Amino acid sequence: MDGMNELGRRAKEAARAYGGTGEAQKNRILAAIADGLEAGWEAIVEENRQDVAAAREAGIRPSMIDRLSLSRERIYQIAQATREVAALPDPVGKVDFGVTRPNGLRIRRVRVPLGAIGIIYEARPNVTVDAAALCLKSGNVCLLRGGKEAIRSNKALVQVMRRALEQEGACPDAVQLVEDTSRQSAKEMMALNRYLDVLIPRGGPGLIRTVVENSSVPVIQTGVGNCHIYVDSPCDLEMAVRIVDNAKTSRPSVCNAAETLLVHRDVAGEFLPMAARALQKSHTQLRGCPRTMEILKEAAIPATEEDYATEFEDYILAIRVVDSLDEALEHIARYSTGHSEAIVTDSYPNSRRFLEEVDAAAVYVNASTRFTDGGEFGFGAEIGISTQKLHTRGPMGLPELTTVKYQIEGSGQIR
Amino acid sequence: MDGMNELGRRAKEAARAYGGTGEAQKNRILAAIADGLEAGWEAIVEENRQDVAAAREAGIRPSMIDRLSLSRERIYQIAQATREVAALPDPVGKVDFGVTRPNGLRIRRVRVPLGAIGIIYEARPNVTVDAAALCLKSGNVCLLRGGKEAIRSNKALVQVMRRALEQEGACPDAVQLVEDTSRQSAKEMMALNRYLDVLIPRGGPGLIRTVVENSSVPVIQTGVGNCHIYVDSPCDLEMAVRIVDNAKTSRPSVCNAAETLLVHRDVAGEFLPMAARALQKSHTQLRGCPRTMEILKEAAIPATEEDYATEFEDYILAIRVVDSLDEALEHIARYSTGHSEAIVTDSYPNSRRFLEEVDAAAVYVNASTRFTDGGEFGFGAEIGISTQKLHTRGPMGLPELTTVKYQIEGSGQIR
Repeated sequence: MDGMNELGRRAKEAARAYGGTGEAQKNRILAAIADGLEAGWEAIVEENRQDVAAAREAGIRPSMIDRLSLSRERIYQIAQATREVAALPDPVGKVDFGVTRPNGLRIRRVRVPLGAIGIIYEARPNVTVDAAALCLKSGNVCLLRGGKEAIRSNKALVQVMRRALEQEGACPDAVQLVEDTSRQSAKEMMALNRYLDVLIPRGGPGLIRTVVENSSVPVIQTGVGNCHIYVDSPCDLEMAVRIVDNAKTSRPSVCNAAETLLVHRDVAGEFLPMAARALQKSHTQLRGCPRTMEILKEAAIPATEEDYATEFEDYILAIRVVDSLDEALEHIARYSTGHSEAIVTDSYPNSRRFLEEVDAAAVYVNASTRFTDGGEFGFGAEIGISTQKLHTRGPMGLPELTTVKYQIEGSGQIR
Repeated sequence: MDGMNELGRRAKEAARAYGGTGEAQKNRILAAIADGLEAGWEAIVEENRQDVAAAREAGIRPSMIDRLSLSRERIYQIAQATREVAALPDPVGKVDFGVTRPNGLRIRRVRVPLGAIGIIYEARPNVTVDAAALCLKSGNVCLLRGGKEAIRSNKALVQVMRRALEQEGACPDAVQLVEDTSRQSAKEMMALNRYLDVLIPRGGPGLIRTVVENSSVPVIQTGVGNCHIYVDSPCDLEMAVRIVDNAKTSRPSVCNAAETLLVHRDVAGEFLPMAARALQKSHTQLRGCPRTMEILKEAAIPATEEDYATEFEDYILAIRVVDSLDEALEHIARYSTGHSEAIVTDSYPNSRRFLEEVDAAAVYVNASTRFTDGGEFGFGAEIGISTQKLHTRGPMGLPELTTVKYQIEGSGQIR
């Protein structure tokens, strides 16, 4: 705990020093990081090679090995992403409210950095730089704790960033890495409410649940997506097929992919075979309710209750035929994680009810859930998709990494 | 836990039903609550009398008995406050961002209720109605858990509110009371993250710490105020005396009262005796650093390190003489709870540094910290002063009881 407390203490101190850094200097720091990554790519790839070798030996699955792996090209991409973050507008210092009160007090609400942000994530070394860049641009410092599989890569990347900070005259502790990747260290980090202002977990549902349930630092829950597509009657069935196929199969591992398809009974007989044909191309497994099974027969297997509550992150789609929009809304209210929900419909009143009544970060009419993304919304890079209601919901870009401060100027007012 | 789970489940269900209630109906509900309180004041006072008698018997201190007591007049004041909440603008439905993307997607960010809000508070029955009224006006439902000393009063007040909801055709579960006031029930409430969207503790530092450390429901930390006044050199010493006296003694029990006075050494010799004379009228005890003691002698007692970290909520003021603005900023960074901090100065650069560098919800130049309050800021009633950075900082009025939802309308877009 002593080591973790010391990291926390330093983060808080660094936040105080770094918070007032002007935009020009912040951009110079990010440029120096990008340059440093490109100049030092060989050393980083060498460390990464050792991580990958150890992960292979430990029998880590191929998709995770892929996420863990860095190459010259990937490092250049990360450097480019850092330059893109530098080009985004700085949210700090924006005045979003101001008033002169009858007693002459001048009140101004100004956006300021959150302060010290802890990020707990898994074995994706690109997150190390992406998250740090977003924090630095928004005036925040970060304490990073990545997965143990990426520890050598992360050390190399953080070294580059700390060197860039120092080179540009900023406190290197604005970016710190937790080198102890034990479970215990994650627990200790969650108890740093004296030092950290926010903790953001990025990773699978298990990691996120652990952080939400155990952290005394305020948490932003991100990226838990049990997303639904509801195919209403009447609707454009061809469009519905394209949307379902895109939402399920364009990238099944991400949080805005669809997991369950709800279909109105009046179109189910025609629509489900069309959808099944399209989804066959990607070998997507269909798990259906009894009515779905009647229609799809051997093209599907029976769904369990558990399936409707599962974020598969895979080529698997749960299906349920419903009697009405109300039943679809009930199902979504019960199983949704509040990420992204879509209706495909030709009915104006139903589109309106869906938009109003579904309680989620992003609610769609006639479009794929896959658009819930900072880039697709036009915000630039994001640090995650908030699925809780506190602070913000949806893609978290730079403005969402700030809070407010009231500055009040008087001339001796007392109350 | 079963009982608490059932309350949580009902709150979530009620949130779904109540969230879309229009402003006109919400105002009718609040009017019916106000009318019901006035019509039923005798029954409420009768229940309250029993609470007060039991509290007296249990030896509760007089200031707490005062907060617990209701009279016809106080109930009419609470009813009036409810009508004032009804008159505030409804934040729900406000669109704060909108864009049409190059692919034709129309994205709109609209403010929506947080959902189900848990409030844990102490023996102040007025909070029961104040908090519920703010929740209802902003489209939220609430689960209230007040102190055991006020349980009979709270039951009577909640009954009036539930009746008003029913009378106006809304779900009565939009206001629920946790009738089990054991410590265990508070713990159980903190674990309701499946059902509650936010938990707001209102009360002393001990209660707030317990909730922050144990809740898996997202918490807004409110009202922890270890506030400082820094008397700089040069400054208007008469003004400084008025501000310090007001900030300390106008209402010492509240969170925006000052607890520590910092004084620049160049003015300490002249200023401290002036301040001591003014504070003598309220018999405020002064606890000073060694340099303060040299100046004030028997007018003060020596301060301990602990004193600087304490929210006295009483007629006690810690004092420290500092060598510079930097030392004052250091002291504040170390001991501040991030609530309200003030400088009294004639120096423009020092005022600017203080406003920029102090990390708190409200930072003042030449005014009393006592102004940190929703009413004084012109926001109307507030549910608390947030001292954390997530979600919001400072007075939390109706807009702060909402979150956002992205509504996206397409014509078949896929990614």
